[in-house]
Amino acid sequence: MSETPSHSPAHSVAGGSPEHEAVTPSPPHVSRRRLLGLAGLGAAGAVASGAIGGVVGRATASPSTAQATGAPVSDPSAAVDFTGVHQAGIVTPAQDRLHFVAFDVVTDSREALADMLRAWTTAARELTAGRPSGPGDTGEAMGLPASSLTLTIGFGPTLFETADGRDRFGLAAHRPLPLVEMPSFPGDALQPAISGGDLCIQACANDPQVAVHAVRNLVRLGVGVVKVRWTQLGFGRTSSTSAAQETPRNLLGFKDGTANLKAENGRALDRFVWVGEDDADWLLDGSYLVTRRIRMLIEDWDGVATAQQEAVIGRTKEAGAPLGQRREFDPTDFTTQTNGRPAIPHDSHVFLSHPTNAGTAMLRRGYSFVDGTDEDGRLDAGLFFIAYQRNPETGFVQVQRNLAGDALNRFIRHTSTAVFACPPGVVDGNDWWGRGLFEPTR
Amino acid sequence: MSETPSHSPAHSVAGGSPEHEAVTPSPPHVSRRRLLGLAGLGAAGAVASGAIGGVVGRATASPSTAQATGAPVSDPSAAVDFTGVHQAGIVTPAQDRLHFVAFDVVTDSREALADMLRAWTTAARELTAGRPSGPGDTGEAMGLPASSLTLTIGFGPTLFETADGRDRFGLAAHRPLPLVEMPSFPGDALQPAISGGDLCIQACANDPQVAVHAVRNLVRLGVGVVKVRWTQLGFGRTSSTSAAQETPRNLLGFKDGTANLKAENGRALDRFVWVGEDDADWLLDGSYLVTRRIRMLIEDWDGVATAQQEAVIGRTKEAGAPLGQRREFDPTDFTTQTNGRPAIPHDSHVFLSHPTNAGTAMLRRGYSFVDGTDEDGRLDAGLFFIAYQRNPETGFVQVQRNLAGDALNRFIRHTSTAVFACPPGVVDGNDWWGRGLFEPTR
Repeated sequence: MSETPSHSPAHSVAGGSPEHEAVTPSPPHVSRRRLLGLAGLGAAGAVASGAIGGVVGRATASPSTAQATGAPVSDPSAAVDFTGVHQAGIVTPAQDRLHFVAFDVVTDSREALADMLRAWTTAARELTAGRPSGPGDTGEAMGLPASSLTLTIGFGPTLFETADGRDRFGLAAHRPLPLVEMPSFPGDALQPAISGGDLCIQACANDPQVAVHAVRNLVRLGVGVVKVRWTQLGFGRTSSTSAAQETPRNLLGFKDGTANLKAENGRALDRFVWVGEDDADWLLDGSYLVTRRIRMLIEDWDGVATAQQEAVIGRTKEAGAPLGQRREFDPTDFTTQTNGRPAIPHDSHVFLSHPTNAGTAMLRRGYSFVDGTDEDGRLDAGLFFIAYQRNPETGFVQVQRNLAGDALNRFIRHTSTAVFACPPGVVDGNDWWGRGLFEPTR
Repeated sequence: MSETPSHSPAHSVAGGSPEHEAVTPSPPHVSRRRLLGLAGLGAAGAVASGAIGGVVGRATASPSTAQATGAPVSDPSAAVDFTGVHQAGIVTPAQDRLHFVAFDVVTDSREALADMLRAWTTAARELTAGRPSGPGDTGEAMGLPASSLTLTIGFGPTLFETADGRDRFGLAAHRPLPLVEMPSFPGDALQPAISGGDLCIQACANDPQVAVHAVRNLVRLGVGVVKVRWTQLGFGRTSSTSAAQETPRNLLGFKDGTANLKAENGRALDRFVWVGEDDADWLLDGSYLVTRRIRMLIEDWDGVATAQQEAVIGRTKEAGAPLGQRREFDPTDFTTQTNGRPAIPHDSHVFLSHPTNAGTAMLRRGYSFVDGTDEDGRLDAGLFFIAYQRNPETGFVQVQRNLAGDALNRFIRHTSTAVFACPPGVVDGNDWWGRGLFEPTR
């Protein structure tokens, strides 16, 4: 539910033009520090040529690296490579279904926590390949293909230290500075019980049973170590993360994510999505994940005429064109006038969230949800917003502050919030989720 | 979650053998009374030859009638014919996703209610063809194919008269005698807020966005007349309703629905599913729908060894074979012994629910659900059970009574119940859902 840059010349961010960079494939890139780490695993040569299994550099146009970098996977039932410089599930072309789960850690043992993360990594490697999670697998995915399953892990602020400053697992010194709880925003209607969490797993797949099966088996392997805090199921991805994907519609009936950052925008990803060398060592090549459960007041929205809906969004409903234009990918031109007034109103969602006006960008991969009905019989439906960014403060927080006067706010309520630091990808068979955090080499 | 007859010789119901009948296609069949009604619409000749658009007789093997009778539709994005002797969504090959909604009627006006049913019928005709519901359509399905959407309506007991006997809409005299609230069963943990309802719509599709869009637009068209009472989303159909469909797995990890009644079992459907001439006139060729939300105690189940799970179910986990057999469709033979004891334990789910022992059968088309987590962090997941039968008393009630000693009961809780009378199909462009009830010809 925000605008980030894509193809058109008008999509320029103050100080940069990511969409121009996107048309020139970036060379495979693995940072110096990470390369040293990979070299220690005997993989330096292969990494330098961008060809160690799933371990490839950032967006390139070569078909051999397409899958791991998130370029289109043509077969929705195929497997997505689990290993890579970055975790899969971020720039991977957004799958159709989501099962998101946030956990509280219930053990005090750092060793038990690390052991579970090792066990989760082993299971995730199998599950994403379309195989059972190991002995004790619950079985409901037997016979189903991998279905592009990705499992993406994140660590919440409370894993590093509690609100009262307790260093639960000796990790406080390694907390990345940007990893702090989200500030309050006007109109927030947050429910603490479905917000926050020490850990999260984002499971995406093209078959919901495959996503549910994966989460359930990670839960099973975490008994005694973690407890589910909250979950969110989603369907109908509301953003494209690859230029090859069609733009889907959200439950407002509008195309969403037309101008999203895409897997093909290599340098824009480096600038806006991947954590660089100015952050915690262990988080290099990782990203920050912000989730917001955004309830839509569907019935109110449905009572508004299409023209007024279009003025609220800033795009046409059917084609998804910026107002004043005709086609979806026509440039978002804020100077166009209609009847002497800006075609795209200055309080519209597109205007306020656009990088030109918000001054930043993030990669979104949200999902629609319908969680039944509320006590008044109204649909409890909306958008589970998911965004990846290099720094939450200059990503989601900056955009959201700019949306304070958004005309759309009348039709939505943020009911849940969470932020997680997502470590880099697992690079080989010995690596595991969080190793860099739990076993720092320096 | 019960066994009903299918292919094997062992699947014989006392007094009949529906699986033998199934291999001989029944001739197109439209009852005498309904035929008179259709003749009144000028359709008699066409009906007699079984070829009026979607209006076809009961299961035949001819490709031209395959779609409307529920035989396999090869393209999951194609449209399912809305019109027919029976409503679509009963023997239609089970689609992958469900959005079920129960309504309370909030008007006292019989005319307003009938008008809404006419408007719903018009909208359903469009929606199931993959078109917008009409002016004011909410738009989120624009560009999406029909996705095998079916919309199936049912009328609850409270539509005819309230618990205190009030005849709300002058329909009390037309209440079918079998349409009464379900009796209590041992172990019920029913929540009234998600039980019952005056009306229901079962929306099934191969794309959840299409199902949600359809329900939302019917809700929109019903403003002031109905209010949503409860909803249930489901995924991963847990039963096949056609012999051409693979048997899916439920969240217990077991194949479910191996021995379900199938679209191809023409005479068994006449005997067990379709309402005959011994019931209310307006319900002829309709069916009774029973829903039960069955919460599975997933974590308890996952703590049980596979062999013990298999003894509880009565089938093997991987192959889905009856215990003592090797393949899924091997006969369910209750005389087979293993180590001097029955291979299929007499307290197993398969034993107790099998038609041989329950003495009856029904057509199931349930869905798995995951509704997040409960206050203890346990998955709120299970099976939304849906069954169609000619009479609830000799269908679901009879089977459920036989399941009182089911070993599976330790792992499940019924949290919602409802029963609805589903009228026959809409036969042409002038017909509408419930016309036979609201405008009886005799």
